[in-house]
Amino acid sequence: MKLKHLTGLSLLAPSVALAAEKPNIVFFIVDDMGWVDSSVAYGEEVYPNNMRYNTPNMQRLASQGVMLTNAYACPVSTPTRTSLITGVNAAHSHITNWTSTTRDTPSDATGGAVAMMQSGVNNDMSGRFSRPEWNINGMSPVEGVESTLYATPLPQLLRDAGYYTIHVGKAHWASAGTPGASPYNMGYNVNVSGNVAGMPRSYQSEDNYGNTPQLWNYLAVQNMTEYYGTGIHLTEALTREALKTLDYPVENDLPFYLYFAHYATHTPIQRDSRFVQRYLDAGMDEGQARYASMVEGVDKSLGDLLDYLEAKGVADDTIIIFMTDNGGNAENKAKGGVRFMHNLPLRNGKGSVYEGGIRVPLMVKWSGKVAPDTRVNTPVICEDLFPTILQMAGIKRYDVVQSVDGKSLVNLVTKGSKLAAKAAKKGQITDQKSANSFVVPQEVSGIDPERALVFHYPHQWKPYDLEDIDFLSAVRKGDWKLVYRMRTGKLELYNLREDIGEQHDLAAKYPERVKELAVELSETLRKWNSPMPSYRTTGEVVPMPDKL
Amino acid sequence: MKLKHLTGLSLLAPSVALAAEKPNIVFFIVDDMGWVDSSVAYGEEVYPNNMRYNTPNMQRLASQGVMLTNAYACPVSTPTRTSLITGVNAAHSHITNWTSTTRDTPSDATGGAVAMMQSGVNNDMSGRFSRPEWNINGMSPVEGVESTLYATPLPQLLRDAGYYTIHVGKAHWASAGTPGASPYNMGYNVNVSGNVAGMPRSYQSEDNYGNTPQLWNYLAVQNMTEYYGTGIHLTEALTREALKTLDYPVENDLPFYLYFAHYATHTPIQRDSRFVQRYLDAGMDEGQARYASMVEGVDKSLGDLLDYLEAKGVADDTIIIFMTDNGGNAENKAKGGVRFMHNLPLRNGKGSVYEGGIRVPLMVKWSGKVAPDTRVNTPVICEDLFPTILQMAGIKRYDVVQSVDGKSLVNLVTKGSKLAAKAAKKGQITDQKSANSFVVPQEVSGIDPERALVFHYPHQWKPYDLEDIDFLSAVRKGDWKLVYRMRTGKLELYNLREDIGEQHDLAAKYPERVKELAVELSETLRKWNSPMPSYRTTGEVVPMPDKL
Repeated sequence: MKLKHLTGLSLLAPSVALAAEKPNIVFFIVDDMGWVDSSVAYGEEVYPNNMRYNTPNMQRLASQGVMLTNAYACPVSTPTRTSLITGVNAAHSHITNWTSTTRDTPSDATGGAVAMMQSGVNNDMSGRFSRPEWNINGMSPVEGVESTLYATPLPQLLRDAGYYTIHVGKAHWASAGTPGASPYNMGYNVNVSGNVAGMPRSYQSEDNYGNTPQLWNYLAVQNMTEYYGTGIHLTEALTREALKTLDYPVENDLPFYLYFAHYATHTPIQRDSRFVQRYLDAGMDEGQARYASMVEGVDKSLGDLLDYLEAKGVADDTIIIFMTDNGGNAENKAKGGVRFMHNLPLRNGKGSVYEGGIRVPLMVKWSGKVAPDTRVNTPVICEDLFPTILQMAGIKRYDVVQSVDGKSLVNLVTKGSKLAAKAAKKGQITDQKSANSFVVPQEVSGIDPERALVFHYPHQWKPYDLEDIDFLSAVRKGDWKLVYRMRTGKLELYNLREDIGEQHDLAAKYPERVKELAVELSETLRKWNSPMPSYRTTGEVVPMPDKL
Repeated sequence: MKLKHLTGLSLLAPSVALAAEKPNIVFFIVDDMGWVDSSVAYGEEVYPNNMRYNTPNMQRLASQGVMLTNAYACPVSTPTRTSLITGVNAAHSHITNWTSTTRDTPSDATGGAVAMMQSGVNNDMSGRFSRPEWNINGMSPVEGVESTLYATPLPQLLRDAGYYTIHVGKAHWASAGTPGASPYNMGYNVNVSGNVAGMPRSYQSEDNYGNTPQLWNYLAVQNMTEYYGTGIHLTEALTREALKTLDYPVENDLPFYLYFAHYATHTPIQRDSRFVQRYLDAGMDEGQARYASMVEGVDKSLGDLLDYLEAKGVADDTIIIFMTDNGGNAENKAKGGVRFMHNLPLRNGKGSVYEGGIRVPLMVKWSGKVAPDTRVNTPVICEDLFPTILQMAGIKRYDVVQSVDGKSLVNLVTKGSKLAAKAAKKGQITDQKSANSFVVPQEVSGIDPERALVFHYPHQWKPYDLEDIDFLSAVRKGDWKLVYRMRTGKLELYNLREDIGEQHDLAAKYPERVKELAVELSETLRKWNSPMPSYRTTGEVVPMPDKL
């Protein structure tokens, strides 16, 4: 005989004192969806690419919350996802690339046959670099697992604080055969489909999401048997699973954390038949239309979630964080259109430290706390979400084994958005959608708008050279950004306020600023002992940018 | 701001009145483990087969609880599992055979090539019977799914009553593409690995449990990526998952229902390397030793679970129900030994309505309620567990869409076991292990020891004839059992008290009893409109036994 549901509560206390401020939190993360792949502009103006998509529910969310117009993730999936769950910058966690499904298998693209024969290790195409040592097995909640970052995962802290934690969709923090492979080791109560896969084998129920003798590989989506052959797209199936698993905490009035990680819009680029015709009719080619239909599928999912929360009467108690995991994939032919044009005006795309690879949508809805339909432009980065979510959950003290790099964005999105709304009312911002949305002072947000944000990709992404992607590192500080090209030893300088497309290298014009940022980047990488490639011939590590 | 954890509770009531009697419940179910496949005798005496196994934790559980020495399941997996989750007898649910992984695909064994060519449907080997219409897609918690039994599942009722519900292991209630495929549709909060698979593709982590390009088929075990290549046997991996998922309800003092359904000891018969040597050393052949090591693996799992509950201080608050899903597979060559000798003294094995196919271990531990180390011999059947578990959970009123056939065994295992213990103390039972363990009067147990229990297998099991398995139906009533052989129209009568091995057909000797039982069986099958095969040539349904 036990007192159920009463743990830690005193029956003598007045009921008002018992009211715990634990808002529900939904982290809705989309895969590979670029910054301009939406009818809502995630930046400070509407670009031509925004006109191509139909995402009414993202617009709905934007109208209800604050948009962070200068939000960043890592160039590829796993580093972003492990930064979110640990609060550690990728250059610091040494998880700088995506994790393979299989353990101890670096995902670094193999070089050409000659380079392979010469060294037996993964090299860049030129054969010049050997791959760096990085945490190829990803993140581990258990100590002592080879080639992993040992860290205390966010959902564990949330669960310990009384949250009911649900994982739906893509996990991709670690490789098979390690504890990080399973959301159940991360503090999640529930897991639907999350494991070591970074993409689905298929989105189509006709393919059983890859579970057929013809198609199967490690990326076949698990936990989806009920939908096989039903005509239900994976995005819709995951949405149904998410809402289903929410019933328990909603009905039992438990605060919940839902990490809802869509596989879409990652490759394979396959049509969502509910939405594709609109885009074909608009004159898109097949690839473009497929991709746009996948975006709209995700948008529908977001809408269904918002509808569910409203219908259950918990919308106002639920924070929604909307984000994507990296820039849009701009070099995949299956997406149609013209290669590397997908993220315009941003340069390049997924894999790159140029803006097209790292700048992402980020919106936060929080009724009563965040002023609706506002924008703030302080630069923020994915690891910030770790302390942000803990603060949102009212968790003030927590023990973690890792050294957290992120800063809480709570004051930025609450006080900051209210300041922005007030300023807009006073006419101090004539157009919220225009450039230069509200600048939140550091004394209000606690976030220095001039802090250095580091992006580090010391890898070759594909088995062919991609000049604007492979072996790059970058730092953004205020309006300025330094890009370090390890292959050529070249440093580039851009002013993002004037040149969001990174078309005008100002390095020659501002050598002092180049030097300052090179030192900032180098000192950070040194402090974190960040992975760096080495020269295959000498074994020497590529120099830090301040040593050039 | 919400009052968390206080749903439905009044703060004004004194705390003692709030104490809800909701014991935790663990249903530990083993697959294909026969009645004599253990060092603890599940019957009323120790048989030679019992001497072959080492299962100290089953002995430990037996010493702590009551054993039901005349417990029954269905001849194959799905019917037992759907009876457990719905309370409906298989002949009534029309789920009389195992469900295929793929929808709308009868699992009835195909006949010989000639029969196939002649009719295009599944036939028995002789080509004489067409398969019956049965619910080939299994059980559905949603109305209107073709070829399913629509029913309210047990875990949903438990969850609605405040239980935290966990599914680990094999589900096998339904086929892919239907709602019954997913434990998340059955009221389970958590699901690890349960889906449409009735067996694992492999138990070995070296095979990734079947998730390799060489091995994969629909039976590859899902949700297990963290264990790939780790050397951890599936039985151990599932045990770790079960204990991990228990942490949440245990730490939050939520009453829990854990349905822990091992894939073991189903085929493939693969060694559990932790235990196999003992059996090889004892002179078993490779197949026998492999099987025995799988049994011991399951026993270890049970022990780990009991240890966990004790360590967490919840052992006395937790009811353990231990059962297997059907008789031991006695015709599989991989198990070594001599075919059909595995279940001796019982006749035949899995698939059969003879005792070897349906008589199963059943033990219940319930501290303070069930007298330890006791045995009762009232015949009981798997669908009884449905109302039993609801009563254990204190759920008095519930709405279900199905017509429940099972009877609660709560009084039988509580009052009955105490009576048995008292009788033993008084010397009324000189040896608890001997035949004729305590007879619990119906006025105490609410269970008529003479009620008719029906077993119905109107199918061909394998793509070859199995005379003692295919197309059989049976009824047990008290000590008597009638077996109906549909192919030959023969009725057999056995006295199980005298002849547990069903070796002496007494039909000729007791024609009146044959008639009585034939009427009982026929009326039940008619009332339930039970599936019956038909003659291929005429399309006529096989006659009921009272029409012979």
